[in-house]
Amino acid sequence: MSWKISSSNLDSSQILVDESLFFTGNGYLGVRGNFEEGLPASQKTIRGTYINAFHDSVPIPYGEKHVAFPDTQQKLLNIIDAQTIEIYFGEERFSLAEGEILSFERKLHLDQGFTERIIDWCSPSGKKVKLCFKRLVSFQNQEAFIQRVELESSDDLGRVRIVSTINGDVSNFVDANDPRVASGHAKLLHVTNVEQTEGISFVECETTNTKLKTACAATYCLDVFNSRRDVTETTGITSEFTFDFTGKAAFEKKSIFVDTWRHGKDLRVSAIEQQRQLADKSFQHFLQEQIFFLQDFWKRSDVVITGDPAIQEGIRFNLYHLLQSAGRDRFSNISAKGLSGEGYEGHYFWDTEIYIFPVFLMTQPEMAKRLLLYRYSILDYARDHAKEMGHKKGALYPWRTISGTECSSYYPSGSAQYHISADIAYSFIQYYLVSGDLQFIKEYGAEVLFETARLWLDTGHYDGEAFKIDAVTGPDEYTCIVNNNYYTNVMAKHNLHWAVKFYQLLKEADQEAFAIVSDKIGLHSEEISSWQKAAVQMYLPYDEERKINPQDDTFLHKAVWDLANTPKEEFPLLLHYHPLTLYRYQVCKQADTVLAHFLLEDEQTIETIRNSYDYYEKITTHDSSLSTCIFSIMASKLGDHAKGYHYFNETARLDLDNTHGNTKDGLHMANMGGTWLAIVFGFAGLRMKEEAISFSPILPAKWEGYRFSIQYQGRRIQLEKTVDQTVIALLEGDALTIKLFDQSYLLEKAAPIKI
Amino acid sequence: MSWKISSSNLDSSQILVDESLFFTGNGYLGVRGNFEEGLPASQKTIRGTYINAFHDSVPIPYGEKHVAFPDTQQKLLNIIDAQTIEIYFGEERFSLAEGEILSFERKLHLDQGFTERIIDWCSPSGKKVKLCFKRLVSFQNQEAFIQRVELESSDDLGRVRIVSTINGDVSNFVDANDPRVASGHAKLLHVTNVEQTEGISFVECETTNTKLKTACAATYCLDVFNSRRDVTETTGITSEFTFDFTGKAAFEKKSIFVDTWRHGKDLRVSAIEQQRQLADKSFQHFLQEQIFFLQDFWKRSDVVITGDPAIQEGIRFNLYHLLQSAGRDRFSNISAKGLSGEGYEGHYFWDTEIYIFPVFLMTQPEMAKRLLLYRYSILDYARDHAKEMGHKKGALYPWRTISGTECSSYYPSGSAQYHISADIAYSFIQYYLVSGDLQFIKEYGAEVLFETARLWLDTGHYDGEAFKIDAVTGPDEYTCIVNNNYYTNVMAKHNLHWAVKFYQLLKEADQEAFAIVSDKIGLHSEEISSWQKAAVQMYLPYDEERKINPQDDTFLHKAVWDLANTPKEEFPLLLHYHPLTLYRYQVCKQADTVLAHFLLEDEQTIETIRNSYDYYEKITTHDSSLSTCIFSIMASKLGDHAKGYHYFNETARLDLDNTHGNTKDGLHMANMGGTWLAIVFGFAGLRMKEEAISFSPILPAKWEGYRFSIQYQGRRIQLEKTVDQTVIALLEGDALTIKLFDQSYLLEKAAPIKI
Repeated sequence: MSWKISSSNLDSSQILVDESLFFTGNGYLGVRGNFEEGLPASQKTIRGTYINAFHDSVPIPYGEKHVAFPDTQQKLLNIIDAQTIEIYFGEERFSLAEGEILSFERKLHLDQGFTERIIDWCSPSGKKVKLCFKRLVSFQNQEAFIQRVELESSDDLGRVRIVSTINGDVSNFVDANDPRVASGHAKLLHVTNVEQTEGISFVECETTNTKLKTACAATYCLDVFNSRRDVTETTGITSEFTFDFTGKAAFEKKSIFVDTWRHGKDLRVSAIEQQRQLADKSFQHFLQEQIFFLQDFWKRSDVVITGDPAIQEGIRFNLYHLLQSAGRDRFSNISAKGLSGEGYEGHYFWDTEIYIFPVFLMTQPEMAKRLLLYRYSILDYARDHAKEMGHKKGALYPWRTISGTECSSYYPSGSAQYHISADIAYSFIQYYLVSGDLQFIKEYGAEVLFETARLWLDTGHYDGEAFKIDAVTGPDEYTCIVNNNYYTNVMAKHNLHWAVKFYQLLKEADQEAFAIVSDKIGLHSEEISSWQKAAVQMYLPYDEERKINPQDDTFLHKAVWDLANTPKEEFPLLLHYHPLTLYRYQVCKQADTVLAHFLLEDEQTIETIRNSYDYYEKITTHDSSLSTCIFSIMASKLGDHAKGYHYFNETARLDLDNTHGNTKDGLHMANMGGTWLAIVFGFAGLRMKEEAISFSPILPAKWEGYRFSIQYQGRRIQLEKTVDQTVIALLEGDALTIKLFDQSYLLEKAAPIKI
Repeated sequence: MSWKISSSNLDSSQILVDESLFFTGNGYLGVRGNFEEGLPASQKTIRGTYINAFHDSVPIPYGEKHVAFPDTQQKLLNIIDAQTIEIYFGEERFSLAEGEILSFERKLHLDQGFTERIIDWCSPSGKKVKLCFKRLVSFQNQEAFIQRVELESSDDLGRVRIVSTINGDVSNFVDANDPRVASGHAKLLHVTNVEQTEGISFVECETTNTKLKTACAATYCLDVFNSRRDVTETTGITSEFTFDFTGKAAFEKKSIFVDTWRHGKDLRVSAIEQQRQLADKSFQHFLQEQIFFLQDFWKRSDVVITGDPAIQEGIRFNLYHLLQSAGRDRFSNISAKGLSGEGYEGHYFWDTEIYIFPVFLMTQPEMAKRLLLYRYSILDYARDHAKEMGHKKGALYPWRTISGTECSSYYPSGSAQYHISADIAYSFIQYYLVSGDLQFIKEYGAEVLFETARLWLDTGHYDGEAFKIDAVTGPDEYTCIVNNNYYTNVMAKHNLHWAVKFYQLLKEADQEAFAIVSDKIGLHSEEISSWQKAAVQMYLPYDEERKINPQDDTFLHKAVWDLANTPKEEFPLLLHYHPLTLYRYQVCKQADTVLAHFLLEDEQTIETIRNSYDYYEKITTHDSSLSTCIFSIMASKLGDHAKGYHYFNETARLDLDNTHGNTKDGLHMANMGGTWLAIVFGFAGLRMKEEAISFSPILPAKWEGYRFSIQYQGRRIQLEKTVDQTVIALLEGDALTIKLFDQSYLLEKAAPIKI
């Protein structure tokens, strides 16, 4: 059923993957789907709980450190473990590694916002018991992680003990076989306070270097008569509940997680106060709230696909996990793995702006806005970073970061990716186009665009009449430090062009708001004309012979990598070849020029876009999970529907089917966003431009139909495509003119457009 | 006087510099000019003794490690300290920090091969004593470090104690204020044996990771009656000699240093045996040997300059230190700082081939040959390195190494400098041109050239008709990872061209020798034609507009760095700007295309060479000490004699005057070679080509004259240039035809050429 993701696979490697797939989170808190009762020591597990943006900083080691290489990087920390609930039936400890598993299933309920494990277990001594573990991380109360264990048996289980722990002695994951992990800094969190007070178990920890604190306060509810509770304090608190079993029992654990960023200095007061406020809420109560919350979410975000249940499952799964991972406050964003694992160390990349932001922008614009506010909140860091990198002016956003400082230790495919600043500017522009929210631009967007525009002016230079940008890296990490990367230049052009537009908009609309921004950053009017000039004269490389946009100035002169004769086991190439070897060839890790042609399609003729697609498709490995969704969109645009579907298919179930083999380290958030993009921008052909939004829907041959809705300037518009027709309906808001296959239509509530 | 270098400066910073300037060595062993009696704790010192190539390996840390990044690097170790000799007059310990220094002078005797410190000292209690510390590292007995202390006083000094230590508890230099050093691995050597036996103090140590051993065996001679010796063993051996002072005393210490590379497993036996053999040799005896050795050295190597004593001092100082630092065996070469300090961790670079090898080639060809044999000895490592870097065939020499493995942790200005393989090939070719030694080519040179030629074939590719080499770094480290670096391409062309020549020479001259090499490396005849073709079709970038050779494909399209408005304190730029910023501009750290035009001047017209020189001169910072000597040579070639002298002047006394501010870390060996190159290739215009050698001497305006001799195919040829005339004389060997200002002359012993 398409609202349930389920698994009954207990293979050793699948357990690790399922820990990611069945994680529960709410953008603030994320808890991996670990087993409450633990696992035998021989079973590898990544036991993790994370608070978005809660990190420590660690020194970056260098064999040879050059000027302005960052000294430290940040690392999302695994925090206090509240998952553990051990159960003893007499002397027998419940474990999936012992006794006999009569049946096992774990489920993620996408419409109800909880996961459960249902187990029919026969203990080593032959006692049969049914166990059900449920858990949720509340969407309405961000600090709350709620667990419920139900026991049922007709056998005489005798005395039962439930041993529940809040453990502060935690480390990040280390794999002795992977030197990149093992050499790292696993143990960075230290217990500072353990206190059992007023029935609440309170554990507080502090990071080693940033001195950030986090705490967990837990309470319990056991619905049996005559139970006894024993409490032990060590580097955590263990509560042992003992009772005589009489056929049924239910145990609930309510853990409240707080941290310095959001809850200030006195975490104890804050956590205990929240426990009091939630005192009378049961698991069932939280579950009702989840369902209510998700009804609204799915109303706006659901994509219905008929005729392809596996893809239906994939798209919903992906949207759900994006919801679970996206930060809602100014401290946090959405990291490459969301809150589902420790891969990429919890860092935020351009993935947010290009692959994930559009999903929220078109379905949950308030969440999209918060993602932008995070970028605004780190603007000062971006200004500092520009200075460190030798610029006199402007803002250079860090390639990867948590709190705003540059965390990439290998700059050729890190800090050199200047395009991230244009990507962020692009998002602000998109937000404006879709929301029409000039107030937001006044308060935040203009400043970001002005400062990023300044960066381009300071980075580039005129070579004759052409404005050129040298020594940067584009999205494709198999070719680094190049001159005039088409993607970077065209995105910078867009950034400059819109900085001028925002300037004009602001100046006309609100002199006072304009003066505030202008004074704050010391803006001169000559700067605006210099942006205008650079935008107009921006050099966009074009190859007359092939009639394509070259990826950069010298790309097309390199040898072409022989992909046909590269053995399968040598992919991804980056795990088998030295960067220099990769840089020496025409070979792409991911969409680069092709991505630019999606994001800014009006910059080139359709012929150039088509030729470029054909050219780059042959030399792209898609070794990055950010690639196939873009090729899908462009194949759809260019009318190659079979390919559009083929590439889409690579994205839709990437994590569910663990096709990249590393889902255990966390889910691929950008790819999850990419699935949605491939449907909405690809199959349905949505574009948001100044003049109007437009669609050019097609239906993949394998499908019977699809349906989704978008938010647009206060409206909700639904598109439904079936074999027979396309129906565009205005569900909320005022009438507007839209385009369908380049033709304009007035869309009114009472009159859906049917074709 | 020009055979003595002297210093009487006891400033805190100069003491550190003088430790480098007054180091004593012989290519195997190097001892910094530290004070026997030590220094107060407040005075920074780099107390060091080094055996060429004696190293440990340490892990290279990476924040983000990519495929084929080297796991470990090597580090020249500071070894057992035999320098210490403390002297007590009664209860008063001799120290330059106490009492009064009535006079102080230290001298390095370039013609006698020893250093001395002469001190008139008045002790805190008012006793006056004259102390003289002499030391030498023997050129004839490479393991021997000999010290002599002479005491003289007319005061009653009472009982004198001389406390001499062989200390195994040593570390490499650490500077707490310099994180690049402090984070390193200082303590890597551990004492394994301490033994006082048969009057010999024996201390043996082992490295932590490579498990190499080194040992020191010391003996003493004290020329006073009735002395007493007390020996204490700890992590070293201290011998305390006590005697009644009677006006004069002399103390000699003979330390023998051995290591695993040269002396096998039983270092104890080896060191003690050498002590026995040298038992009857006094300091005076060793000194006589030094003088004898240096007479021959200076006969062949001296450059006499009249009318410029400071430069005369500089050139002799430089030649002497090159002699002291160049390795004589297959384990060792000449490191960037020679044996004078720990800078660049004792690694060997291309400095050897391009800046130092020619000095030895033209004056001490046997030493030049040994430098090549070292490169041959690490050919297997170069083959392995090529494979690691993704090449199917060929040899890629490590950019920096001791024993042959790549030790550079920052590949853009490390492993990417593929030109080192062509530089090494160039040296083998030069050796052949100057020596005519075909036997050497059969045994070693051909194999090196074949394997490096293979590298170029595997690295480059045809772009149309042109053979191109992408993604490498040329000599200029301010522009990294580029396509078609002119220097690299033209040097690769030369390499390929001569690989074909060596092939033909060998095949014609010695079928058997040819078969051996050919079988060993599986050479196919099609490879030879592919080398020939690539050499002929090698792409050498040329800019029609400026009529120069661009440094690489895109160099001339970048913005020009505004050197005129860059504050002085921002040089060297690499200590103030992120690499990306530097890569973004036309700005050179050092001669690159200009160097190529020196090494292979026949590849371009004189106009192109002149235009290029003029162009690059304006954008070159000479932040590298390898730069000004080349600009001097080229200025001389192009007839700008004032500039030729100006640039030369920057090189001649770089260390003596500590103009780069870091002489404390060791002497700049390549620059020292460069001084000689600037005179002999620059002012005298020497070139060695297939047809003949040639001169085009000019005289710097400031000088009255200069004179030097070179070795050439078994001959010794002297050139003397004065204001009035040039005299070229054949001092040894058969008559030959040479060129002078492009005109041919027959040079015979009896008939010097006078012009």
